[in-house]
Amino acid sequence: MRFQSMLKFGNGVRNQCRMYMASGLPEFTQKHYNVKRNNYAIVDDKDVNFFGSLMGAQYVLQDAGTDDLLCYNVDFLRSVRGNSKLVLRPGTTQEISEILKYCNKRHLAVCPQGGNTGLVGGAVPVCDEIILSMARLNKVLNIDEITGIASCEAACILENFDAKAREKGLVVPIDLGAKSSCHIGGNLSTNAGGLRVLRYGNLHGSVLGVEVVLANGTILDLMSNFKKDNTGYHLKHLFIGSEGTLGIITKLAILCQTVSSSVHVAFVGLNSFDSVLKTFLNAKRYLGEILSACELIDERSLDASVKQYNLKSPIENYPFHMLIETSGSNAIHDSEKLNFFLEHCMNSGDILNGTVTNEVNKIQEIWKLRELIPTALIRDGFCFKYDISLPLRSFYDIVPVLEGHVGKLAKRVCGYGHLGDSNLHLNVSCEEYSRELYERIEPFIYEHTAKLKGSVSAEHGIGFTKKNYLKYSKSSEAITMMREVKKLLDPSGILNPYKVLN
Amino acid sequence: MRFQSMLKFGNGVRNQCRMYMASGLPEFTQKHYNVKRNNYAIVDDKDVNFFGSLMGAQYVLQDAGTDDLLCYNVDFLRSVRGNSKLVLRPGTTQEISEILKYCNKRHLAVCPQGGNTGLVGGAVPVCDEIILSMARLNKVLNIDEITGIASCEAACILENFDAKAREKGLVVPIDLGAKSSCHIGGNLSTNAGGLRVLRYGNLHGSVLGVEVVLANGTILDLMSNFKKDNTGYHLKHLFIGSEGTLGIITKLAILCQTVSSSVHVAFVGLNSFDSVLKTFLNAKRYLGEILSACELIDERSLDASVKQYNLKSPIENYPFHMLIETSGSNAIHDSEKLNFFLEHCMNSGDILNGTVTNEVNKIQEIWKLRELIPTALIRDGFCFKYDISLPLRSFYDIVPVLEGHVGKLAKRVCGYGHLGDSNLHLNVSCEEYSRELYERIEPFIYEHTAKLKGSVSAEHGIGFTKKNYLKYSKSSEAITMMREVKKLLDPSGILNPYKVLN
Repeated sequence: MRFQSMLKFGNGVRNQCRMYMASGLPEFTQKHYNVKRNNYAIVDDKDVNFFGSLMGAQYVLQDAGTDDLLCYNVDFLRSVRGNSKLVLRPGTTQEISEILKYCNKRHLAVCPQGGNTGLVGGAVPVCDEIILSMARLNKVLNIDEITGIASCEAACILENFDAKAREKGLVVPIDLGAKSSCHIGGNLSTNAGGLRVLRYGNLHGSVLGVEVVLANGTILDLMSNFKKDNTGYHLKHLFIGSEGTLGIITKLAILCQTVSSSVHVAFVGLNSFDSVLKTFLNAKRYLGEILSACELIDERSLDASVKQYNLKSPIENYPFHMLIETSGSNAIHDSEKLNFFLEHCMNSGDILNGTVTNEVNKIQEIWKLRELIPTALIRDGFCFKYDISLPLRSFYDIVPVLEGHVGKLAKRVCGYGHLGDSNLHLNVSCEEYSRELYERIEPFIYEHTAKLKGSVSAEHGIGFTKKNYLKYSKSSEAITMMREVKKLLDPSGILNPYKVLN
Repeated sequence: MRFQSMLKFGNGVRNQCRMYMASGLPEFTQKHYNVKRNNYAIVDDKDVNFFGSLMGAQYVLQDAGTDDLLCYNVDFLRSVRGNSKLVLRPGTTQEISEILKYCNKRHLAVCPQGGNTGLVGGAVPVCDEIILSMARLNKVLNIDEITGIASCEAACILENFDAKAREKGLVVPIDLGAKSSCHIGGNLSTNAGGLRVLRYGNLHGSVLGVEVVLANGTILDLMSNFKKDNTGYHLKHLFIGSEGTLGIITKLAILCQTVSSSVHVAFVGLNSFDSVLKTFLNAKRYLGEILSACELIDERSLDASVKQYNLKSPIENYPFHMLIETSGSNAIHDSEKLNFFLEHCMNSGDILNGTVTNEVNKIQEIWKLRELIPTALIRDGFCFKYDISLPLRSFYDIVPVLEGHVGKLAKRVCGYGHLGDSNLHLNVSCEEYSRELYERIEPFIYEHTAKLKGSVSAEHGIGFTKKNYLKYSKSSEAITMMREVKKLLDPSGILNPYKVLN
C-alpha cells in the first residue's frame, strides 16, 4: 500500500510563501552567489504578446511588483531565490515546442519548473529566466493492467498517478516524501530515488519511453510501450537526470509493478552501526524478495520528527533506529519471514527492541516518524541538507566527523536515509541561516565525501547549489563530455542555465 | 540457481567454423548486400608493426590466406561474413586507447568483438575493418557481498562472472542462452535482455558504471559503486545498447541480486493464446514477487528441440506450452504459492496439463526444452530469426500470418520467447539459405510489426542486418539525433561502421 502523503512540499506550500519571506528568506541567488548573468535577451512586451497570443493571456503571468511570482521564484527549502518576471503555463507539448522555438531564436533563457520540490535549486531561476511551469500537462494517458505499463503527461502529481495505477492493481515504481506535490516528469528530470529504490530499482530501469521538447523546439518522440526495445541509441536516458538542461520531458511511459496485498513494517532500536549493518544483511538474506524498504534513523533525527510534530514513537532513545518494510503477495508467508528475521536479530543481540505491525494506521504512524524528519529539521529554524552516497562500511562515520567540525554553530547534526541504497541524508540545522556555518560545512563535507569515494549527490541531483562540487564525483573527461552533449542539444544554452555544469 | 549453459555459442563454436563453410556459409556480406566500402585507409605493414610493438606480435593476428580469421569474420548464425585481414587482441584499457587513437588518426575502421554471439551481424566486420577482440580483458575485479555490487572487465564470460558472484551469495542480474560464451561487456553494448528481465529488469537499471574508450582514444571513467549517484548527465547509458558504435566498454560495475535458495519450475500445456494470457496474468497475481520467468513455447518450437536433441518433454502436443519459474527465499512458501496458482488455472480450464518440480536435474531438463530451441532450429538447415516486441493482446497473431505469407518455402514457422516481456522470437527455418524466402519475409515482417505498433528489435539490437528497418520503430527526429550523437562521439566514423545507422 502507499499512504497519503503527510507532507506539503512545493506547490503545496505556495500560500505559505509570504510567511517564508517574513521568516528570513535569503537574498536573491544572483546577488548571494555573485552570479554573472549570461548575455541572454531581456523579455520585452513583444515577447509577452507572442506568448499571450499563443496560449491565451491567462496563462502568461507577469510580476506586477507585488511578489506575485514569489512562489515560482523561491524553492521549497527557501535556500535560493530567482528574479523571474514572467511565468508561462502552456497546456500542450505543441505550445512548449512553440515557446522554446521562439526563445531559442530570441535567445531568451528558460527555467522549466515541475512541482518545485527539488532540494538543490534546480527548478527555480537563478537570474531572470522565464519560468516554464509544466503544471497544466497533467493528464494520465493510459494504464494497462496486463502489461503494467502506464503513461501520462509530465505534470501528473506522483500521488495522483499512483492512485490511478492502484485502481488497476498496479503501483508506480517510485515513492518519495514529496509525492503529494512533485510531478512525475520532474522525478524523471532529476532521476529521483526515494524510499523504494531497494525494491523497484531506479527510473533508468523502469521508464520505458519519454517525449521531449528540445531547446530548438523539436519534439522528440522516444515513447515506447515495451520493456525490450533495442532499436538504436537509448536516447531517453539523456533526459532522465539531466535536470531540464538538455530538453523538457512532456510525456512518459513507465513500467508499474503489481501491487502488494500484504505490507508489514518493523521499527527497531539498535546500539551500534555495526549492528545496523548486520541487520541489513540479515534483512536481505531472510526477507529476500519481500524486502521493500530499509531506512536508518539516528537518535537526533527521530527526536526532530517526534518533538516538532508531537508524535509518539513506539521506541526511542536508541543511537540507531531502523524502519524495515516488507511487501508481498501473501500475508501469512510474509509475517513468518519477518518474525523469523526479527527473532534471529534479537537473539544475536543486534536488535534490542522494536515493534512490528501490518495494521494500516500503525504503519502510517511509523512511516510518519521517518517521512517528517526533513520538514521537522526545517522547523529547527534553517537546515543545510546534504544527500550523499557512501560505502556502507563507513556509512555513518561522517556524521560525528561533521559534528566535530561545525561545533556549536549548529543546533543539530543528524543522519538518516536509505541505508538499503547506501544513501545518507546528512542534515545540519540551526536557528537561522548562517554564512559562517555554511562556510564551515562546504566544501568540507564534499571533500570528505570524495575522500571516502562517495557520491556528492545521491538522489537530489546537482542543480544550482551543488554545481561547484560535481568535480568531486566526476572525472574531468566526463565533465568535458557532458559539456559537449549540452552544446549539441542546446547550443545557445537557453535551457535551465547556471545549473549542473559550471 | 542458474544452470550450466547447454549451448555452445560464439567462440565456443570456433572450431566448427570449417564445417560451417562446408555446409554453405553465405558469401561475403559486402558482396551479398552490395555494400559500398567507406573511404577508410587500408591496413599496411607499418600499421601492423605499430600494433605489434604496442601489444606484442602474438596478439596481432593476420590472415595468411588460409581462413585463419574465419571465426572472427563469421557470426554465430552464419548469416554474415566479413573480410577482415587483421585481428588485434589487446590486454588492457590503455592498449585499447592507444589502438583507437592510432586508428582514428590513420582513419582505419575498427569492429569491436566480444563473445561473437550476436544475432544481427553487429560483432563481425562488414568489409575489411580491423577486428578488436576484447577477449583478454576478462578479470573479475571485485564482488561486494554487503552492497551486492560486482565489477569486472568487459570480456568476463557471463557464466563465469555469475559463478564468482554466486560464491558470495549473489546472482548477476542477466541470464541468456549464450551465457557460456557471451561477454558481459557485449551484453551491455547490446543491452541484452534474456530470460529474467521479468525479475531483474534491464541493464540500464542494474548497471551502475562503465569505463569506456572513445573513438579518439579518450578513456572515459564513468564507474560508480552506488545505486544512487545523481552527479551530472547519466552518460553511461549512451554506451549501453549502442552496439560498439559510440565507444568501447572496457570495465563495468553492476548491481547483483541476492541468490534465491528456492527455485521451482512449472511446465504446462494450454489450448489457446487466450488461456496463455490469462495464465500470465494469474502468475503475476498469485506468484507476485517470486515470479522469475514466464516463457511461451508453441508446438513447433517444442517439436524442434525435442526432435533435434532427442529430448523427452513431460508434456507435448499442446498448441502452447508455458515455462513458469519462481525464485524465492523460502521453499515451503514458494511451493504453496505455486500450487495455489496452478490449481486456480487448472480449475479455470486454462492449464490443461503440466508438471512442477524443484529438483535441480528436472528443472534443468525442462529448461533444456526452451533453451535449445534456437540452435535446434538452425539444425533444420538454415534459420531466419526475428526478435520483436508486440502488444500482448495480439502477441501471437503474427505467427500464423507469417506462415500464410511464406507458404511452402519454409520448413517451419514458429514462435517462442519471453511472454513476460512481450518479446516474441519468431523463426522461419528451411533446408538451406533461400533468397526467395528471405525476400518473402523481409520487409513484410517488419512492416507488419510496425502496423501492430511493435518494436522491430526487442533484445537483439539493430547491428548490420536490421539497420534498414530502424525507421519502423523510431521517428525520423530520433534517428537524426542518433546521427548527431554518433558524429559527436565518433566524428570520423571509425567505430563499428555500417552498423545501426544507415
